[in-house]
Amino acid sequence: MSVASPVSSLNGRLVSIKALFLNCTLKPSPQTSNTQALIDKVAGLLGELGVASETVRVVDHHVRFGVSSDEGAGDEWPAILRRIKAADILVIAMPIWFGVRSSVAQLVLERLDGTYAESDPGTGQYPLYGKVAGVIVTGNEDGAHDCCANTLFNLSHLGCLVPPNVDCYWVGDAGPGPSYIEAGGDAHLYTNRTARYMAHNLLWGVQAIRANPIGTDLSALDAEARAVSR
Amino acid sequence: MSVASPVSSLNGRLVSIKALFLNCTLKPSPQTSNTQALIDKVAGLLGELGVASETVRVVDHHVRFGVSSDEGAGDEWPAILRRIKAADILVIAMPIWFGVRSSVAQLVLERLDGTYAESDPGTGQYPLYGKVAGVIVTGNEDGAHDCCANTLFNLSHLGCLVPPNVDCYWVGDAGPGPSYIEAGGDAHLYTNRTARYMAHNLLWGVQAIRANPIGTDLSALDAEARAVSR
Amino acid sequence: MSVASPVSSLNGRLVSIKALFLNCTLKPSPQTSNTQALIDKVAGLLGELGVASETVRVVDHHVRFGVSSDEGAGDEWPAILRRIKAADILVIAMPIWFGVRSSVAQLVLERLDGTYAESDPGTGQYPLYGKVAGVIVTGNEDGAHDCCANTLFNLSHLGCLVPPNVDCYWVGDAGPGPSYIEAGGDAHLYTNRTARYMAHNLLWGVQAIRANPIGTDLSALDAEARAVSR
Amino acid sequence: MSVASPVSSLNGRLVSIKALFLNCTLKPSPQTSNTQALIDKVAGLLGELGVASETVRVVDHHVRFGVSSDEGAGDEWPAILRRIKAADILVIAMPIWFGVRSSVAQLVLERLDGTYAESDPGTGQYPLYGKVAGVIVTGNEDGAHDCCANTLFNLSHLGCLVPPNVDCYWVGDAGPGPSYIEAGGDAHLYTNRTARYMAHNLLWGVQAIRANPIGTDLSALDAEARAVSR
Repeated sequence: MSVASPVSSLNGRLVSIKALFLNCTLKPSPQTSNTQALIDKVAGLLGELGVASETVRVVDHHVRFGVSSDEGAGDEWPAILRRIKAADILVIAMPIWFGVRSSVAQLVLERLDGTYAESDPGTGQYPLYGKVAGVIVTGNEDGAHDCCANTLFNLSHLGCLVPPNVDCYWVGDAGPGPSYIEAGGDAHLYTNRTARYMAHNLLWGVQAIRANPIGTDLSALDAEARAVSR
Repeated sequence: MSVASPVSSLNGRLVSIKALFLNCTLKPSPQTSNTQALIDKVAGLLGELGVASETVRVVDHHVRFGVSSDEGAGDEWPAILRRIKAADILVIAMPIWFGVRSSVAQLVLERLDGTYAESDPGTGQYPLYGKVAGVIVTGNEDGAHDCCANTLFNLSHLGCLVPPNVDCYWVGDAGPGPSYIEAGGDAHLYTNRTARYMAHNLLWGVQAIRANPIGTDLSALDAEARAVSR
Repeated sequence: MSVASPVSSLNGRLVSIKALFLNCTLKPSPQTSNTQALIDKVAGLLGELGVASETVRVVDHHVRFGVSSDEGAGDEWPAILRRIKAADILVIAMPIWFGVRSSVAQLVLERLDGTYAESDPGTGQYPLYGKVAGVIVTGNEDGAHDCCANTLFNLSHLGCLVPPNVDCYWVGDAGPGPSYIEAGGDAHLYTNRTARYMAHNLLWGVQAIRANPIGTDLSALDAEARAVSR
Repeated sequence: MSVASPVSSLNGRLVSIKALFLNCTLKPSPQTSNTQALIDKVAGLLGELGVASETVRVVDHHVRFGVSSDEGAGDEWPAILRRIKAADILVIAMPIWFGVRSSVAQLVLERLDGTYAESDPGTGQYPLYGKVAGVIVTGNEDGAHDCCANTLFNLSHLGCLVPPNVDCYWVGDAGPGPSYIEAGGDAHLYTNRTARYMAHNLLWGVQAIRANPIGTDLSALDAEARAVSR
């Protein structure tokens, strides 16, 4: 994991904006990851906008199954979670298997479940409040919508803002076939277009949320809800 | 369809904020709609925040199957679409059938596909850009996550902003059973809590987007993408 | 609706086997339906095996929204339901919209919900018990897995048998693009292969179920379950 | 892993029928698994019908991420796969996390992808052809339909037969809450009913398939498809 810190202009001030990509491929380094190729494209576009990107290839780390933020001895999730908390933009990137997101992507979401227990003592907001979410998907065919929909919804539940058009995917036509790199997905118009929409709208999201932080007091609303519930 | 226009304070100015709920129940008026009961709760909470709400019960109108914004003689979708375009907040509300969103909700999404063809001549943004989306789901059991995930993702693709925690649902436990009203869902803590999160975060979304309109020039990005694609 | 009645050999006896395809396109006749083109292919393959096929294009009929088997005046679902009950093989065929099955397909499933209330007075089996299910999907991109999974699961819940490999779909690569006919899907290897698997395995299902009818006494099992439940 | 071998009567002959449950909980032994409690119920019902059951708790074994049948040094999947191949009935059992199946369940499906490469040299059928599939799901709320639909569809694609009503799930109402054991799910009527339907219909499936093995020659159909495709 390495991170640079370029500066970006937000309302005239120079500020640092950081994007974290979690590559949820099943293949450990140094195997070629099609998902990484698409991550690199989006990260490059964000870089042109002054956003610093880093990628964590999750399967290279020993992340234990579980739903807490620390599953004990040898668990490397806590270090990844610190990276997530330090980022402004969180992009979950994944391959499709059997029409849905990879087991590694699902593992990441399960581990993020632990953040519900780390809410802010004042506002009750979860740690991912104030972050902006995106999703990247590659597969040799079919399943991207399911991956995008579930992942963005899960992230919005965890506190992230989801701007319009922050998904970028490539899939081939029906049945087995070449994947993103081999198929020349790098020159696929739809994917290139949405990669750009995504980069620009993620940046907008960060700017919007910095200019207008979400002030919702979840704790106060909880108390209000308890008063009218059984 | 009726609409009031209360005022809300945004950065010290008095402005009108409008929410439109599309009730996608299968049952025409005057049958009791559980989904409407939950809409009314969320609309009431928004009202306390100064947001004016109206509901369109889609099945009461003659909306034709199709994927354009006007399917010709007798089609009542164009009138509904005008309401959508006039709103700041768009909430699709639906019952679950067979674990997924109702056919009427799916019909609404299919008709919204037509808005992709009505992009702004300058920026290329679709008509739903600048709007804030939410989702409401009721069912006697299981399926809310699928309804929420697909619907919010579809709306984000159409241009809507999705703030955190803008879904509100009620479902009973496994198998057939009473629905929201009969089951006393009105006093269900989780649903009451998320109704409040949703109302507050939808309002935040409107304020954020008014203070920082999304400036992304989709047309320019399209041209850029074409230049690097085959 | 028209139906021929060829004969097929089952354990040496000549018997009639009937397949019903419900085309859930959004487009009424005589518009070109890509889904119909793929139905015709599978029906042709079934025909070579001695199975008679008929198609109902649902949107050409006035089928009302609802979850009963008869929604009253003007509802044309009862006539379609009779066709379903007369068939051995039921194939739901649909286009993808927004990554999921069309509203017309969802409408069909919702109407089939009504059959739960028509269980056999003796065994408690629903009317679709003893039938064999398949699914056909066309889309210009992504979403086939979601359509197939939900539709086959729903049909299995309604009583249908699902043999292996009874789905047949065609989708193009990521983003908008030509549909099945225009894209030359007729010559797509994966789709042609699975069309054959599907035809043969549907026929196997009918033969298996005729040789060994499902004898499960749902009513007796209900009583048994009640005795151990609260 | 332990396995008994009771006998069952099939067309008057005494035969052994074996069911394998893969418990895809995230929690290693000896932690309490709600999913195991529901597995035990279904296994008990199958036992009454003369079917021998064994369970593999996947997370207790070192199963590597991947999509082949053997991921090399230390991979314990090959031993599990042998159990799968020796079974007549395969039931994937799982908890729900974030509305979808657990990462361990997804991992299991990904590993089963490897069986496509082990097709019978004669018929081209995959190793799971001839097996009967079921699914068990527990969660404190919402998501069972998605888990069931995807898992049964994936298994049917891999070659399994899916009889009617071979899913059994328990979920609580909306939001966080007690799980199956604590909530007294053991006495939940719907779950107890479907557990019985499932046990009886899985057994029927085995009997049907033994009496009428699926003879489809996938290799011949592949060749036929190639002849008409580009």
